[in-house]
Amino acid sequence: MTTIEREEARQRTILQLEKAGIVLTAEEKANVEVADMGLGELAVSGLQLITYVNSERYCAKDLVLFPRQTCPEHRHPPLGADNPGKQETFRCRAGRVLLYVEGPATAAPRAKPPAGSEAYYTVFHEIELNPGEQYTIPPNTLHWFQAGDEGAVVSEFSSMSRDESDIFTDPRILRDAGL
Amino acid sequence: MTTIEREEARQRTILQLEKAGIVLTAEEKANVEVADMGLGELAVSGLQLITYVNSERYCAKDLVLFPRQTCPEHRHPPLGADNPGKQETFRCRAGRVLLYVEGPATAAPRAKPPAGSEAYYTVFHEIELNPGEQYTIPPNTLHWFQAGDEGAVVSEFSSMSRDESDIFTDPRILRDAGL
Repeated sequence: MTTIEREEARQRTILQLEKAGIVLTAEEKANVEVADMGLGELAVSGLQLITYVNSERYCAKDLVLFPRQTCPEHRHPPLGADNPGKQETFRCRAGRVLLYVEGPATAAPRAKPPAGSEAYYTVFHEIELNPGEQYTIPPNTLHWFQAGDEGAVVSEFSSMSRDESDIFTDPRILRDAGL
Repeated sequence: MTTIEREEARQRTILQLEKAGIVLTAEEKANVEVADMGLGELAVSGLQLITYVNSERYCAKDLVLFPRQTCPEHRHPPLGADNPGKQETFRCRAGRVLLYVEGPATAAPRAKPPAGSEAYYTVFHEIELNPGEQYTIPPNTLHWFQAGDEGAVVSEFSSMSRDESDIFTDPRILRDAGL
């Protein structure tokens, strides 16, 4: 991803948040993260986010997905004897999200993994989240998600986030920003 | 507070959230909490809230304050050897909040405690929160807050909430809903 592409994505993210009524300070706008996971196809795979707080006790972020953009499949493993791994609650604020987690596969999932990456998507239990709807993903549970045609804004409430510990199904992924 | 007063406050809360771009499901709308703390003067003392998630690992709520409404002074005490008490991050989403915490008293605080309740307000270190601004209140720290003339919507990210453990400075207060 070039510097210009990253900056364009950052500006687009800020506009999408504003459209959803979410206000950021100037400093936060400068700190919006754009994560293409090293796959080099941000419009298809990746996400944008702003972290409001991340401490030993809790974490809160707002995630932004462009239309049909997919956050690749991953899980949050245990982080020591006292921490079973990050638990997170996704609350859809605007747009729509199709979330896939471990469990019985949905017969006809409405989202398709990005072309060429199908091998790295293994869970297909579908959960649809519209504005006001939310779902809590247990620790160490594989999940991936894709925005609908209008994109999506999702609030993530969770236990402490340690991005560098995330385990992605796709071995090509280089983790460079928080989920 | 009569049933009609409570229902009016609930509807007003839903409208204020909608104006801030925050969508609730029908079930959540029915579960909006209206807390007058037993003081019987909701327009002056109390707050409204919706709890999205409250678990051992984290908690998230949206708080709504009517114009100039005050959430009375309280603290979140330790909850056993492993829990120093609830820590919370207030993020202003809409309107304005004047927050008061322990620390050097501000020379001319802009908010005044509700008339007749002055004796139960003891901390005056002022923090102003406008949309996009946030502040983290350490565990077991006295705090109170008041909305500006337009009211306020505040996202609260925190460790586990145990409302019944909250300690209010005002001994008249009967805690009947979550902060």
